Amino acid sequence: MTASRKQAALDYHALPRPGKLGISITKPVSGPADLSLAYTPGVAEPVLEIQADPEAAYRYTAKSNLVAVISNGTAVLGLGNCGALASKPVMEGKAVLFKKFADIDVFDIEIDAAEPQAFIDTVARIAPTFGGINLEDIAAPACFEIEEALIERCDIPVFHDDQHGTAIVMAAALLNALDLQGKRIEDARIVCCGAGAAGIASMRLAIELGARRENLWLVDRKGVIHTGRDDYATLNKEKREFATPPTERRTLAGALAGADVFIGVSGPGLMKPEWLMLMNERPIVFALSNPVPEILPEEAWAVRKDLIMATGRSDYPNQVNNVLCFPFLFRGALDVRARRITREMKIAAVRALAALAREPVPKEMLEAYGQKSLSFGPEYIIPKPLDPRLRECVASAVARAAVLSGAAKQPYPPHYPSQGDIR
Amino acid sequence: MTASRKQAALDYHALPRPGKLGISITKPVSGPADLSLAYTPGVAEPVLEIQADPEAAYRYTAKSNLVAVISNGTAVLGLGNCGALASKPVMEGKAVLFKKFADIDVFDIEIDAAEPQAFIDTVARIAPTFGGINLEDIAAPACFEIEEALIERCDIPVFHDDQHGTAIVMAAALLNALDLQGKRIEDARIVCCGAGAAGIASMRLAIELGARRENLWLVDRKGVIHTGRDDYATLNKEKREFATPPTERRTLAGALAGADVFIGVSGPGLMKPEWLMLMNERPIVFALSNPVPEILPEEAWAVRKDLIMATGRSDYPNQVNNVLCFPFLFRGALDVRARRITREMKIAAVRALAALAREPVPKEMLEAYGQKSLSFGPEYIIPKPLDPRLRECVASAVARAAVLSGAAKQPYPPHYPSQGDIR
Repeated sequence: MTASRKQAALDYHALPRPGKLGISITKPVSGPADLSLAYTPGVAEPVLEIQADPEAAYRYTAKSNLVAVISNGTAVLGLGNCGALASKPVMEGKAVLFKKFADIDVFDIEIDAAEPQAFIDTVARIAPTFGGINLEDIAAPACFEIEEALIERCDIPVFHDDQHGTAIVMAAALLNALDLQGKRIEDARIVCCGAGAAGIASMRLAIELGARRENLWLVDRKGVIHTGRDDYATLNKEKREFATPPTERRTLAGALAGADVFIGVSGPGLMKPEWLMLMNERPIVFALSNPVPEILPEEAWAVRKDLIMATGRSDYPNQVNNVLCFPFLFRGALDVRARRITREMKIAAVRALAALAREPVPKEMLEAYGQKSLSFGPEYIIPKPLDPRLRECVASAVARAAVLSGAAKQPYPPHYPSQGDIR
Repeated sequence: MTASRKQAALDYHALPRPGKLGISITKPVSGPADLSLAYTPGVAEPVLEIQADPEAAYRYTAKSNLVAVISNGTAVLGLGNCGALASKPVMEGKAVLFKKFADIDVFDIEIDAAEPQAFIDTVARIAPTFGGINLEDIAAPACFEIEEALIERCDIPVFHDDQHGTAIVMAAALLNALDLQGKRIEDARIVCCGAGAAGIASMRLAIELGARRENLWLVDRKGVIHTGRDDYATLNKEKREFATPPTERRTLAGALAGADVFIGVSGPGLMKPEWLMLMNERPIVFALSNPVPEILPEEAWAVRKDLIMATGRSDYPNQVNNVLCFPFLFRGALDVRARRITREMKIAAVRALAALAREPVPKEMLEAYGQKSLSFGPEYIIPKPLDPRLRECVASAVARAAVLSGAAKQPYPPHYPSQGDIR
């Protein structure tokens, strides 16, 4: 980043006052009469109602629209373990996105607890405050244990965005790319480079969508994960879940021979242009490392013309960006009071995003991006973040799936679009 | 509370949307350029700055103006142990008061942990998020242990408002009442009915202000606390701190004989009108139990005319209301980046409040309260919550004390009024 862009980013955060969030009061508080309702003595009434029926908290407090964005700062962006405090600008940024895109109120909470059990206990204890929990920037493999434990302990949706947000948006792009390349997910040989939160969740979701486990190759920094590897016994259980049988094709290049799909959720420059030639015809290359992808699109295009590419960056086509999912997934979940984020809700989000990319693009969106046209094809396989249709499209699909899968405590909202089988 | 007032309170909390708080975005986020500063890639810059220097969190995040209002719901208002979730309307209400009176942003956090160590660990771990911590509605004696431990563990101000907020406002009223009654705190015999958070903190503060320990009588529900009491060994250390030598005057009435001051922080109706006659001439009666005081002003006035009374209620003169203190005390503490709330800062708040009640009242305040006049005297010993001078008066006194007592990390703010010895 140039010195001037760095300064612009710092100034943005510092001026005219520090940070990006503030509190707004949503009820009148102009005089003593108002204050006697907002605080004592009036406030005792909702207290008593909630004491008698915990569900009343959703009627009388901000809980119903309040999500916690929580991190311990152990894997901040691509910067590594920066600590809880230094993760705060990112968590505030996430809160900004929740508010702007889905009108969800977010408290960012930075937790000084790198040890999983301490982190789990802390989140579980503050959970009554919130209507949902978005875990963020927590290092693997602790993130898996943490999310599983919190889903078990909390009666509100818990969602680790680095896992499932990335996986959902990637999967939507993948379904469309496969279709354009004339391939089926059931037959696709998929190589995933990166076995952290995003890699594991992406592979799990690919299987939910029809990919066959024997077609998946997971690669970490020591190479292909297979059961014959020297360090196999020391690998975490999430990596072992995707181990292939013992193989001589132990490197990323080895795995790529004959592959249909490369998914990079690892680090800058790890995919060499010449390896693209090892892949099957009409390959799919998702180089999602950010800000520097595993391979730059111009490098890839110089080698092969029959590929479809996506990155995590906004300055190339096909940006796989979590913001396409998390605000709207939580919007749908909150609006039907889902107790958890089910498999069905995640798949509904995938399919809704994939379908939206096939719809004609509204004019206001073209203007927002300064583009003359945009239509479904190799350079447009996934919606763009400023697409005004995202909220209704994804939230309604998620809400519908929550209701149909029994996760919802409230009916499908009357102000949501009719979905044929559901009203 | 009548059915219609109850419904008004519930409607206020429920309509048009639940709760009293929301999030506002304080920076521009209108297009992709803004978002690239608020989130990736720009947000990495403040992360790196904070990683290199934790102090930078105060420049680049909302931490500098963000206070947590935290409860476990073990002593909600006068309602008892309602649990964490049911305390949420109260904590949101407190956030409203912080915002309205001192423009401080507050996240309310309800913690499901009645056990002190679990509560302490939870608060300490989430502390990086905040610039200050206001503990609220935590039962005694756990509240003492909790506050002490958190002051020790956190490098930001920690303040249990039920203790010190009440004590500070009470003490300001007491200093003025003593003056009007022609008494000195050094000579005053003080009876405190109620040995919970407010009672203990009030007695401790009275001593800081000059009261003599041998003149203090602390009364709990079993009577006067003295070292000869059967249950003495089982009393918590805070109660034992104020135990008198063995005495035959074991009841509240017994303690009141010859007393100058009654401070009630206990329960409704515990002070009998006839007991007022046992007190010394020109007594001071602070019946602060809320909403029903230990004795109603009309009952007291019917018995004696030479008393000065205060209550916790807005519909009588001399309301001892914590809102006179906590927003402004935190305003001052945040504005000089105080590491903790020192004894000197609390006493500065007491003296600032006491002094303000002696100043001529501005016209806008008379209008706010629909009163023709208001001047220092038995029916006006303490400022009123809507006094527009409170913020500057209390915050500047607290900030000055923080700087002079070495608790401040920043200098006295240039936009604060000059204080003679400090600029």
